[in-house]
Parts: sequence; structure tokens; C-alpha cells
Amino acid sequence: MRSLIDVVDFSVEEINELIKTALDIQKNPDMYSETCKGKILATLFFEPSTRTRLSFETAMLRLGGSVIGFSSASSSSASKGESVADTAKVISTYADIIAMRHYKEGAPFVASQNANIPVINAGDGGHCHPTQTLADLLTIYRRHGGFDNLTVGFCGDLKFGRTVHSLISALARYSGVKIVLISPKELKLPDYVIKNVIEKSGLSYVETDSLEEYMNQLDVLYMTRVQGERFEDKLEYERLKDSYILTPDKIVSAKSSMTIMHPLPRVNELSVKIDTDSRACYFMQVESGKLMRMALIIKLLKEAKNPEKEDRLATANESVIKCKNPACITTTEQEIIHYYKSVDGERHCIYCDAKI
Amino acid sequence: MRSLIDVVDFSVEEINELIKTALDIQKNPDMYSETCKGKILATLFFEPSTRTRLSFETAMLRLGGSVIGFSSASSSSASKGESVADTAKVISTYADIIAMRHYKEGAPFVASQNANIPVINAGDGGHCHPTQTLADLLTIYRRHGGFDNLTVGFCGDLKFGRTVHSLISALARYSGVKIVLISPKELKLPDYVIKNVIEKSGLSYVETDSLEEYMNQLDVLYMTRVQGERFEDKLEYERLKDSYILTPDKIVSAKSSMTIMHPLPRVNELSVKIDTDSRACYFMQVESGKLMRMALIIKLLKEAKNPEKEDRLATANESVIKCKNPACITTTEQEIIHYYKSVDGERHCIYCDAKI
Amino acid sequence: MRSLIDVVDFSVEEINELIKTALDIQKNPDMYSETCKGKILATLFFEPSTRTRLSFETAMLRLGGSVIGFSSASSSSASKGESVADTAKVISTYADIIAMRHYKEGAPFVASQNANIPVINAGDGGHCHPTQTLADLLTIYRRHGGFDNLTVGFCGDLKFGRTVHSLISALARYSGVKIVLISPKELKLPDYVIKNVIEKSGLSYVETDSLEEYMNQLDVLYMTRVQGERFEDKLEYERLKDSYILTPDKIVSAKSSMTIMHPLPRVNELSVKIDTDSRACYFMQVESGKLMRMALIIKLLKEAKNPEKEDRLATANESVIKCKNPACITTTEQEIIHYYKSVDGERHCIYCDAKI
Repeated sequence: MRSLIDVVDFSVEEINELIKTALDIQKNPDMYSETCKGKILATLFFEPSTRTRLSFETAMLRLGGSVIGFSSASSSSASKGESVADTAKVISTYADIIAMRHYKEGAPFVASQNANIPVINAGDGGHCHPTQTLADLLTIYRRHGGFDNLTVGFCGDLKFGRTVHSLISALARYSGVKIVLISPKELKLPDYVIKNVIEKSGLSYVETDSLEEYMNQLDVLYMTRVQGERFEDKLEYERLKDSYILTPDKIVSAKSSMTIMHPLPRVNELSVKIDTDSRACYFMQVESGKLMRMALIIKLLKEAKNPEKEDRLATANESVIKCKNPACITTTEQEIIHYYKSVDGERHCIYCDAKI
Repeated sequence: MRSLIDVVDFSVEEINELIKTALDIQKNPDMYSETCKGKILATLFFEPSTRTRLSFETAMLRLGGSVIGFSSASSSSASKGESVADTAKVISTYADIIAMRHYKEGAPFVASQNANIPVINAGDGGHCHPTQTLADLLTIYRRHGGFDNLTVGFCGDLKFGRTVHSLISALARYSGVKIVLISPKELKLPDYVIKNVIEKSGLSYVETDSLEEYMNQLDVLYMTRVQGERFEDKLEYERLKDSYILTPDKIVSAKSSMTIMHPLPRVNELSVKIDTDSRACYFMQVESGKLMRMALIIKLLKEAKNPEKEDRLATANESVIKCKNPACITTTEQEIIHYYKSVDGERHCIYCDAKI
Repeated sequence: MRSLIDVVDFSVEEINELIKTALDIQKNPDMYSETCKGKILATLFFEPSTRTRLSFETAMLRLGGSVIGFSSASSSSASKGESVADTAKVISTYADIIAMRHYKEGAPFVASQNANIPVINAGDGGHCHPTQTLADLLTIYRRHGGFDNLTVGFCGDLKFGRTVHSLISALARYSGVKIVLISPKELKLPDYVIKNVIEKSGLSYVETDSLEEYMNQLDVLYMTRVQGERFEDKLEYERLKDSYILTPDKIVSAKSSMTIMHPLPRVNELSVKIDTDSRACYFMQVESGKLMRMALIIKLLKEAKNPEKEDRLATANESVIKCKNPACITTTEQEIIHYYKSVDGERHCIYCDAKI
């Protein structure tokens, strides 16, 4: 049984196949309007995320299926202390596929180990959000026809932005990609991402705190929000904050084919004056998310007919030391077994990927 | 693209057409059970309103369509600070039509200006609630076969009751209608409604603080709730409160064909002892609401195929002065442009209709 | 019009018929995939219960119907003070059948008296939860082929556990059933259940505070949670608490055919180490709940075509004395008429069954 916990669970070939399906759905929506007839998607959202939840629900409805679920933990059995494992087992008797959002890192993985149906990670704390990355990849593909040799700028909060880390990991598997990292020094991309992802894959990259410096070279500009509360030095924040707000004057030097992206919701870091610019693609990103979720549901339901259980634990070892990450699902789940995997000689928790 | 923000957006002919469709749906429900197959309604309720939300959802399901949405702001992206305009653009990539309830006046109008799909105002603060008025109109039509020459009493809180103001505006377009305004002096119909709607249209009207005085002349009695907290003089409230509670003894002198209406939910202003009286039509009103919402969804989805954009802004002017109404959507929406329209030489905000 | 308020509303023959339908659905799900096409279930959950709500919604969707509803009182009209009776009348104009969960005892009964469509009690406070009992009965039937002559142990909180009381009432109608009541003395089965249900029906029973004592005789072990806050003597709780936690070592002496049940959610009273034991049937119980709810919806929608109104009030008398149970719906419902029925010379409230 395949689930999707992290975007790199899928091979480049599988992602290409998803993109192909998504584009075909876009072209011939009527051909897919009964593909999932009689199937039920459970949207288990332990924290609210309207856009992602409605995207999944739309995807299933457009495929002719139906939806059950909840939109916050307060209206779920979690408020009665139920474990994620039990929730997954219960929902397996109701639905055909699960999309789970959870505030605990690794919760969708625990669900996938206990469910008899495929589980899609719809965001687990600061850990992964693979369907956002699938949306990002389709958007870039629709604009540029591929990923090789693109120059992709990431701007804003590169330290905590999981969508940024995840998209960089996905792009690292293509050739000739150049990464431009634009951020204040407080919010730089973490060293372990540079070391384990960028340098290991041989991507070329530069770091800058100037949004304008490499603007004319970018094929893609991926904007994220810079939040004041991330800064220790408030004067530094005051000095910098406006430089990371994208306004029409800042893209004057950019290529006419550049693609401006943003995971949304935005607050003010992206002026609405950009919206009518042909380079603004953040609403196309939303549509891409729906299309890729449709393709993903089709793929996983198809593979669910195959009784073989995928085993992410095959290369894992039972751990006597508990994971120390307070956001990890292992801190709350009943009677959970701790596992680690070895990465470059270090031990990482199998649930949240934190170093043990 | 047509949307429905205010009931007077529709001509008398269009309302007659909706009534005709609604009655046909009532007579032949099976003929409409697949009319909206494959279509998705998004119910975006930024404040809870179970009856209205479930009425819309039932309407869409009975037409063979499906529904996505949320039932309160806390489970929406609004809690992350997303603008109404962005929400409308995002949902346009998911759904085929939107029903929006919002605590800010003008929010559904902002949505309609940004969506690529029709938007129905399902209530925006104290401003408009056009589908309630459509329900009221169908109920009166079902009981009396038309609107001309009816005597319609409105009882209770005529000052703040937006359903009252809206139904009066709708009735003002028919001929020979007489209005009886029954309320304590604290809760009288506002002067601007009397001046701009009733007197301008040449409706005849009387004002009274007695529920009994004109009872024997009424064809319709529209009840609303009188809330204690609206009174400055608590003694006055104590003296008056029971006189606006409808009990069987108060309708002894009424016509046997009189229609008793109430927008619901009631608390105690309408005794349950009235429920079995053949004149009690407030639950018929609920059914009328469902039927008119079905007719409305059919109409707007049909007109959505027409690519022409309706432009309520055509006669509006960009305003340098901001709207002062604290409940207006312009006080919170990101980078919004202020517009006014001229009404009898006064400038009114295009979003909330307040005088600037 | 039939509704389901209490499991004993149904005769043994009717329950057998439901079991037969449920087993046929399990065997031939595709034959039922359009049984309720065009029908709408309203899930009115005035308090959250994800498992039960999603079970009902799944049941309706698997029958080809659709669902409207709400998942907590805060997003319902109840927060505006609407009565249960009015809610039932309103929803009757939208849906074809109601499943209602309410914190007030008797609320679903009030709904059934006012709705024009069947009402299923999905749990009303500490009063009844008949579809849980239907799930329990099907599970036992699937494991043992019937109910006669079974030895059924109930362990844990037998004082407050409404699922326990209800299942005992249901089993009391079969012959040769032996009941083993396993609990600390603080949480013993109430005397009125022993007297009115067990002794009246001639069931044989024993009481013990030892989980092990009768383990080797049990055909069914029904576990429930022992909550510390139920004990006045905390030392007593400390002494006892682990003895009611089911772990693999405690079922060593049990029959290999024993069925372990639990209404879920569990916290820690049932070790996850039991889950892989072939006797563990609590997730089968969840599936049984879905199947029985499907059978129930089919039955009630079929009987709804019969215009005769079932009248639980036929043998009731109007009461001048009000029910004193603070959890009873009569304490909050607008203008409700109080009724009692006579049981063994005592007067009981018709709504919550409490002695008046």
C-alpha cells in the first residue's frame, strides 16, 4: 500500500507521471468526472487549513467521489484522547483514502502504518507538506515545460518555511538548477538543508539579502512571508521589512517570463498590484494544487488494490533512545515504538526526521 | 457574470421568473434532481448560520450538485489574515458558485468583484440578506397569488431588522401595497427607509405601537423579535414586551386568510401555540427559502456561461474619502479602493451603502 | 413514522431483520450503492462525536445518499436559542432523515415528535445511544452466530456506562444469557438496572471485582474505562486501577473464541498489545456500527412512506409535576408539555426516563 508522507517518497518518474495525469485532467475534466465514483475521501484535519482541505475535497468531488471528515481537533475524537493509530484504524472501516493534517510531526506516518487504506500527508507541523510541493512543481512545469537549468529564487523566511525546504529537495533531483537564496541573515536557509540537500546533490546556489540583486536572472521567484516575531533585533526588522514586500517597482528588471509564486495565504508581503501582472502565478498554483491532488488520489487508489504493504520501516531500527523533538508524534502517541534510521552516520527519528 | 448582493439587483421580472421556477421545482422535484450534476457550491460562512447554510447545501444537493465549505471564520483562512478578495480568487479555482455569509458589510460584493464565478450574498452583517427576502416573497406568493394590493404588517424591531427593510424594498415595486408598521417608538422604522423607500415609491403606510389596532386588516403579519437590550428605558421595555409576543388570543380578530411570517429562529416572541393555526406560515417560509435558493442557483449558473461581466462599479466613482462605517469591509480589506455612488445628491459607499 | 430513540423500541424480530440486512450489505455492498440515491441525511450533532458522526455519514454515502449537518452546538442555531422542536421542523423541510446527538436527555425524542421525517438518536447525554448497541449486537452475532446461552462479561465503569446498561437491556430479551459484572464497588451496576432489567428478565448474573475470576468462562468481554475522578477514595483508586487495564497476560486463561469489545475511544485501559490478538474485536465493532446504521437508514426510510405516526405518547399522561433531572430536555425546551409513564407503579419522565 503506497502512502505519501514526504514528497521524496515518490521517484522523479512518479512525479512526472503525476504531472502528466494532472495536465490531462485539466485538458479533459469530463473524462475524470466518475473516476472515483463510490469512493470516499476522509479529510482528517487536526488543525484548520481551509485552502488545503477544500482543495482535497474539491479534488475528490471532481473525480465523482464523496467526502467525510472534520476541520479541527476540537470536533474530533482527539479531544477525548484517542491515539492517531486508533483514528487511522477506525477511519479505515469508513473511507477509501485519508488526507491528514496534524500539528504533530510524524502523525500522518503513524496513521499510514496503522491504516488499511492510503494516507496522504496534508501537512504535519513544521515537518512536511508534500502536496504543496506537488502544486509548486506542476506550476513551474506549466510555465517552463520542465525543471532542468532553471534559476529559482526563494525570498523571505527560508529558515522556518517548510514549503521552501521541500521544494528545494524536489528540485535537487533535476539537473542544472540554480538556487538563489534571498533572506535577512536571521532567516537564512538552515545549514543542514544546504549541506544535506543542496551541496549533496550538487546544486549551485548563492545567498543574498537583496531581493533586487539577482532579479534579472530569475526564472522563478518564490515569495514567503517575513514575520516580525522571528527577529530578536526589532530595529533590524524595521530596517528590513519593506525590502521583502514585493511591489511592481521591484520586478521592473525581471524577465518577462519569470514566474512569481507564493504558497498563500499572503498578508501584505505581495502587493495586490502584482496580481494583474502576467508573471503572477500564485492563483495558478492553487489550481495546480487541485489538479495534482486529483492525480495523486487516482494514483494511490489504483496502487491500493495491490496488497503489498510498503515498508518504510524496512531499513529502520528500533530505538532505545526516545526522540527529543517536543513536536514529534512520539511524545503523545500511546505505547508507540521508537525507530531511527541512519543518515550519514547520524541517527534520525523515523517519524519526524529530527536528529536523535 | 451575475451575482446576487442585494435583492433589488434583480428586476421584478427576474423575481417573477425565480418564483415560477421555484413553484415548478416544488411540483416536479424529480425533474430537477440532476440539473446541477458535476457542479460544486462553496458555502463560505465567516459567521455561523446553520439554517441558511443548510438551506443552501440542501438546495445544491437536491439539484444533484455537491458542496464544499466552512461554517465559521475560525476554521477558515480568514483567521490567518487572508483577504476576502484572495479567498474569492482561490475558491474560484475550486467551485462553480459561492454562497457567502460575512460579518463585514460589503464582503460578498468584494468577493463578486474578484471571483470568476457567481457569488450569492447569504447575509453580510446588518446590510443585506437577499435570499431571506426571496423566501419571504415566495411564501406570500404561495399564499396570496401575488403582491398587488396586499396589506402587510411588520411587527417588532423595525429599526435593526434587515429582513424587514429588505422586504419593504422588494414590496415597494408592486402596486397598491399598504404597509402597517407596528413597533415601540424605540424600534421604529428608520426615517431613511420611510423617506427613500416607502415615500419615494408611493406606498401607503401607517405607524402604530399597537399589535391589535390594524390586526383585522392585515393580509400578512411579519413578526420579528423585540430585544430588551435595545431599550434605554428598562421600565418602558417591561411595560411593552408582552404586547409584541404573538399568542392565539391576539389573532382572534385577524382574517382567516392572514399569513403569519417570521424569519426564525424565534425565542419566545411567537408562541408555539400558534404553530397549529392554519395561518402560521413560518415553516413554509423555510421551505420557500430552499426552493428559491434552488431557482437562484439554476439562474446564476446559467448566466455564468455568459462571459460578460456585470459591473456595479460602472456608475461608481473612486472616492478619496474613506467609508466611516466600522462594520464596512473597507476597514479590513487589504489595499481596497474606495468607491461611492450618488443617491439623491448624497454620496454612499458602494460596499455597505452607508452615507459617506 | 418510526424513529429510533431507545434500542428496545425495536422488537427482537426487528433487530434480527436489521442484522440480516447488515450482513447482506457486508456481502454485497455494490447492490446497496444506490439504495438511498436522492435522499439526504441530516447529522445534527449538538456535541462533537467524530466517530459516530462519520459512521452515520459514511453509512448514508455508501447507500448513495448525501449528507448535510453540523458537528457542534456552537455552529448551530441552538447558540441563538432555538428550540429542538423548531430545529426538527426546519430540518424536516430539508432532509429525509435525521441523526441527532444532543447533550440533553430526551432531545431526540422531542425532535421525533416534531419532525415529519424519521429521527435516529445518536446519543442523548447519559440516556441512550441505541446505534452503539446495534453495533455491539451485530459484532456478537458475527462472532457467535446468535445470543442465546452466551456468557457476557462487562468490565470497568458499570455505574455510568450507558453502553453497558443498553447492551444488557438488549441481551435480556434472549434466553440463557449469563452476565458477569466486573467492577470496583464504587462503579457497580446500579440497583435499578439489576432489579428492572436483569432480575425482571430472569437473566443469571454474578458480581465480582476481579477481572481474572471468571475469565475462562466468558464468551464476550466488554471493556470500558475506569476514570479516576469517579472515586472518592483515591488510595482505593490507586490500588485498583491497573487491575482493570487489559493486557495480554490477563487473557491467558480466556477461551480462544472469546470476543473482546470496547465502545472506543480507549485511552489506556486496553493495551495496544491486544490489538493483534484474534480475540480483539473493537475495530470490527466500528465496522459493525457502519453496517447497522446502513441497515437502519434503509429500514426507517422505508417505513417513513407509511403515513401512520407512531405514538410513544399513547400510553403517557400529561404531568403537572415537572421532571427534576437537570439533564432533561424539559428544563430548556420552550413551552414543552410534561408527560409521565407508569413503570411498576412509579412515574417516569417520558423524555429522560428519570423517576419523577
